[in-house]
Amino acid sequence: MLVVMQANATEQDIERVVKAIEAKGFEARISKGEIKIVISAIGSKLTDKRDFELLPGVTEVIQLTTNYKLTTRVFKSEDTIVEINGVKFGGKYAGMIAGPCAVESYEQVDKTVQALANTGVKIIRGGAFKPRTSPYAFQGIGEEGLKILRSVADKYGMAVATEIIDPTQIDMFMKYVDIFQVGARNMQNFNLLRELGTLHKPVILKRGLSSTYEEWLMSAEYIMAGGNGQIILCERGIRTFETYTRNTLDLAAIPVVKKLSHLPVIVDPSHGTGLRDKVEPMSRAAIAAGCDGLIIEVHYNPDCALCDGAQSLYPEQYDALYKEIKQIAPIVGKEIL
Amino acid sequence: MLVVMQANATEQDIERVVKAIEAKGFEARISKGEIKIVISAIGSKLTDKRDFELLPGVTEVIQLTTNYKLTTRVFKSEDTIVEINGVKFGGKYAGMIAGPCAVESYEQVDKTVQALANTGVKIIRGGAFKPRTSPYAFQGIGEEGLKILRSVADKYGMAVATEIIDPTQIDMFMKYVDIFQVGARNMQNFNLLRELGTLHKPVILKRGLSSTYEEWLMSAEYIMAGGNGQIILCERGIRTFETYTRNTLDLAAIPVVKKLSHLPVIVDPSHGTGLRDKVEPMSRAAIAAGCDGLIIEVHYNPDCALCDGAQSLYPEQYDALYKEIKQIAPIVGKEIL
Amino acid sequence: MLVVMQANATEQDIERVVKAIEAKGFEARISKGEIKIVISAIGSKLTDKRDFELLPGVTEVIQLTTNYKLTTRVFKSEDTIVEINGVKFGGKYAGMIAGPCAVESYEQVDKTVQALANTGVKIIRGGAFKPRTSPYAFQGIGEEGLKILRSVADKYGMAVATEIIDPTQIDMFMKYVDIFQVGARNMQNFNLLRELGTLHKPVILKRGLSSTYEEWLMSAEYIMAGGNGQIILCERGIRTFETYTRNTLDLAAIPVVKKLSHLPVIVDPSHGTGLRDKVEPMSRAAIAAGCDGLIIEVHYNPDCALCDGAQSLYPEQYDALYKEIKQIAPIVGKEIL
Amino acid sequence: MLVVMQANATEQDIERVVKAIEAKGFEARISKGEIKIVISAIGSKLTDKRDFELLPGVTEVIQLTTNYKLTTRVFKSEDTIVEINGVKFGGKYAGMIAGPCAVESYEQVDKTVQALANTGVKIIRGGAFKPRTSPYAFQGIGEEGLKILRSVADKYGMAVATEIIDPTQIDMFMKYVDIFQVGARNMQNFNLLRELGTLHKPVILKRGLSSTYEEWLMSAEYIMAGGNGQIILCERGIRTFETYTRNTLDLAAIPVVKKLSHLPVIVDPSHGTGLRDKVEPMSRAAIAAGCDGLIIEVHYNPDCALCDGAQSLYPEQYDALYKEIKQIAPIVGKEIL
Repeated sequence: MLVVMQANATEQDIERVVKAIEAKGFEARISKGEIKIVISAIGSKLTDKRDFELLPGVTEVIQLTTNYKLTTRVFKSEDTIVEINGVKFGGKYAGMIAGPCAVESYEQVDKTVQALANTGVKIIRGGAFKPRTSPYAFQGIGEEGLKILRSVADKYGMAVATEIIDPTQIDMFMKYVDIFQVGARNMQNFNLLRELGTLHKPVILKRGLSSTYEEWLMSAEYIMAGGNGQIILCERGIRTFETYTRNTLDLAAIPVVKKLSHLPVIVDPSHGTGLRDKVEPMSRAAIAAGCDGLIIEVHYNPDCALCDGAQSLYPEQYDALYKEIKQIAPIVGKEIL
Repeated sequence: MLVVMQANATEQDIERVVKAIEAKGFEARISKGEIKIVISAIGSKLTDKRDFELLPGVTEVIQLTTNYKLTTRVFKSEDTIVEINGVKFGGKYAGMIAGPCAVESYEQVDKTVQALANTGVKIIRGGAFKPRTSPYAFQGIGEEGLKILRSVADKYGMAVATEIIDPTQIDMFMKYVDIFQVGARNMQNFNLLRELGTLHKPVILKRGLSSTYEEWLMSAEYIMAGGNGQIILCERGIRTFETYTRNTLDLAAIPVVKKLSHLPVIVDPSHGTGLRDKVEPMSRAAIAAGCDGLIIEVHYNPDCALCDGAQSLYPEQYDALYKEIKQIAPIVGKEIL
Repeated sequence: MLVVMQANATEQDIERVVKAIEAKGFEARISKGEIKIVISAIGSKLTDKRDFELLPGVTEVIQLTTNYKLTTRVFKSEDTIVEINGVKFGGKYAGMIAGPCAVESYEQVDKTVQALANTGVKIIRGGAFKPRTSPYAFQGIGEEGLKILRSVADKYGMAVATEIIDPTQIDMFMKYVDIFQVGARNMQNFNLLRELGTLHKPVILKRGLSSTYEEWLMSAEYIMAGGNGQIILCERGIRTFETYTRNTLDLAAIPVVKKLSHLPVIVDPSHGTGLRDKVEPMSRAAIAAGCDGLIIEVHYNPDCALCDGAQSLYPEQYDALYKEIKQIAPIVGKEIL
Repeated sequence: MLVVMQANATEQDIERVVKAIEAKGFEARISKGEIKIVISAIGSKLTDKRDFELLPGVTEVIQLTTNYKLTTRVFKSEDTIVEINGVKFGGKYAGMIAGPCAVESYEQVDKTVQALANTGVKIIRGGAFKPRTSPYAFQGIGEEGLKILRSVADKYGMAVATEIIDPTQIDMFMKYVDIFQVGARNMQNFNLLRELGTLHKPVILKRGLSSTYEEWLMSAEYIMAGGNGQIILCERGIRTFETYTRNTLDLAAIPVVKKLSHLPVIVDPSHGTGLRDKVEPMSRAAIAAGCDGLIIEVHYNPDCALCDGAQSLYPEQYDALYKEIKQIAPIVGKEIL
């Protein structure tokens, strides 16, 4: 932590700051400049910078980037590669996940997944428990949906990724699911993150609607701190003043977060834009920006989907997109298995 | 729902839209203007506007404000008044809640509450379970904290408000707590909201960091739909591009939400600004804007607080503020019991 | 400037940073901690922190608050008081400015100002040149409007504040106007600011729609650097994700900016909310938060206003609001002349 | 415009709304549903929706997308192609513009442009007048800079694009410049836009830091309304809560705005990210998303640049990026001339 004081601060003011720093267990070092005095608080403790901001003579207090010790690239420079069902995320690999927004019926999942299998997809997605803004909207079909996903996935040799919304669901999910997905609304559901940290299954951690890169990595840190390092970060759009698109897909998150952390970063262009005709260009863009994979909503008949049909691709659109992505990937040094 | 088409849309385009509207169970009514054609979809079903946005000739689709049937003022025009321990929130009353950010020890709560009792406070707050961005930060002392709150509250004849972060905690909380507080991060923890809806205790529902007024009311609707109408909405700041303050306290939420809904709206200036010297002016401002109460962090010794000390008032500051608020309230037609 | 490096940075990395700092004319001082190394760049030059962010081993670079040498409170601790026509802004005084959004006709201004005079207003506002998002919207009546403002102001002994949108208009404005108003869209029109800095008339500088406090003060610095210190800062709402209100009025700007700078801060609740029934509560809130004045739109017949009628108060509403404000002001130590 | 009323609105309320609509010169048509009443105001006039929001019984008022008659794709479905010096922007073409942030000296521009010429660039950029947040920062070398740009461009057979910041500069710029660039801060400098509308030279119109797609198109409409249709829109990042990158580059703007308008959309990844190592991935992403061109900062020696060196590419980096872009473009149906 760095406490910045105005150059005309009195000796008494400076001393008070030094004492406050030492009282919190830090060592204080003073650097005097012409227009500012900077006091460094040396130590590895966590503290609240605002305790110092209120002291007389202090103009600002700067907290150095929080220490996400486990997710940071500082202490592990090589890329983490998460492998599931022969698909790799991270390093020189980009993995593809696809499937319907919500599980509606066996037939719906079967027809959709059959088409995806032909395209070459090996991991499917689909929501059985849907967190919805309105209590009157379709909330998913629950455990029945998990059974359908497992059954269809087994038929086609697929792995299953699906969203968990509560720590009490973990035992149930363990029976059916290969990859836990934590939705944007739950990115800071710390009890859930802690529980997932004790498991040995990969977790896709979506970025919260208004979460900074740092908060996102701190949430990943909750999982890693429990011993589970198989984490895939997923950018899915942030909330901004522009409401024309559902969210603003922040593709700069790819190069930025991959520089900060060794964890793979994938992109969800379906939630990120909310409209089918924007999913294709943004998927291509994400791959060109160097992402480690894509999770895309596909439905064999989007016009009749119970949820988010408008952002789901038709299987033939997905197939065409997949081919384009296969062409772009090698240009940026990526391989899609 | 209203589907807007360009004036040069073909008859075929219009017919396709009409059929799509009818297929979803609505009745379609066409109004043709010079530069736009508007097709109203009449009916009370929920639908996804984006299904129509993608049809040829459509320029935009407008969803009428979601029907939060229970929280809206349309069907209940008189103010809801929530009364706890003789304190009223709503209508012509504004209620005061105060206490430390986190429960640290019996002594800390006791000393703080004693001072608050002298000022006239009848409801205390204090966190026993703290959701923290970093896994390495102080996470609260758990059930022990609830016991301390209950014990001190009983000693001084107070009611207790505290944050619940998981539906599994409800039974435990029922033993100690008078008012459930749902934090900003949990505003869309729908399982938690549903469970609170089945209880007969008041709920303070904080606005999410990036939640619109409408989403906030939809979350309240989850609680009301379960039968629990004792809801107090709490504005606590939103996330914007301005990072100088911890959040941007949106005081316009007071007149806006009170016009949309009959529920009381209180303000948390402690989290809303994050700095002690901003808490006082923003508390006065909130009262002057017509809010139904304030929830403020006070600590008998903020400099040694384990959590958010910098935004906690000293008891004597709170006492002075309380007096100013008592003077401002009648000017805007409010009474503080 | 502070360059933060990871603790495992090599001696070579550190040396490269030190050389880069010295090459830019700073002195470098190194503080080594357990998990971070901080190198302070001592000196008063301006530099671009990103030049250092890209160097190997660097994790972040922190620029100390830019030196707005003239607007900062560091070097001038007493409040600046701007006095116009006997009305004072700043210190223990709050000033009131009111009038129609746009000048439409002599009759309109006369009728409105007559009512305002009865209430006690001594400074009127009104736009003659209106910057409008659409080229097809009413753009103001130009110089004719300035003449009307001057003529009516003289009749009632008022001063005139009005918006200037281009430096080429200065000579014309000097003939009619007492206070220059710089609109939110022009907050960073630096040529305009520079020109206003050379004059001897007060300037109201509105905050840009997405401007930080620091950028706002840097724009004021452009004016002060030219020699004109009569600046009144005006908070008028920022753009956020919440689109229900026209803007999000950021009242915390009052205590924050008044702590950073000695300049007076007033509030424009009319543009800040965009709706008449929100103007009153937010005006009271602004005063309770300690602002140095209010600029409010009033029209003798808002229903027929050519511009922003919906956010204009009726004269009798303004009169009632004025009385409430007079009651709140002394509670927060303010006087309205 | 559509006025939405609650279903329990009285006949008197409805009548009042109808009269208000007719008083503004519209025709009113009523559609009654179960839970809402919608009154369409038919006509092509501009009006302020807030005039209706305040009427009793009204729950919301919806303004149909503003009529940018000239920039919209509704009335001109084919892509506008802007051609400069043999380079095409729009349709199946993507054009490349590159050069230093600021003009510093003849030698600097000459060395940089020589390298760009070898890569194949035919349009150079460079700022002679720099709008800077701080009055103490480097402000550009003025007309001397324009002369250098012209002279070097002529030597290598290039066209020149540079930023104009004031309408008074137009005559000077006409002597040296092939393309006018309007910066983000001036997107709503309507006097400047109007003047540029009367010329016969292309204009690059950058998106404002907090401007919606609609406001951006309305600004283009100012230029087109004057008769100048050679407009290139430029996405350069928006301001959001995420401050790690200088701005949040909103690549979804490409498919969205190209659907709304026939005008070409290019991307400025240099300002959009602010960091050299993010420029490359975001440039590739922009092309993959289907943009009509890129404007990129390149400096022969970025480490010594007077302005924005950290976001400028080295010539050899640009050359490598150019080759990657040439490979990606045909995959998305684009050609780079």
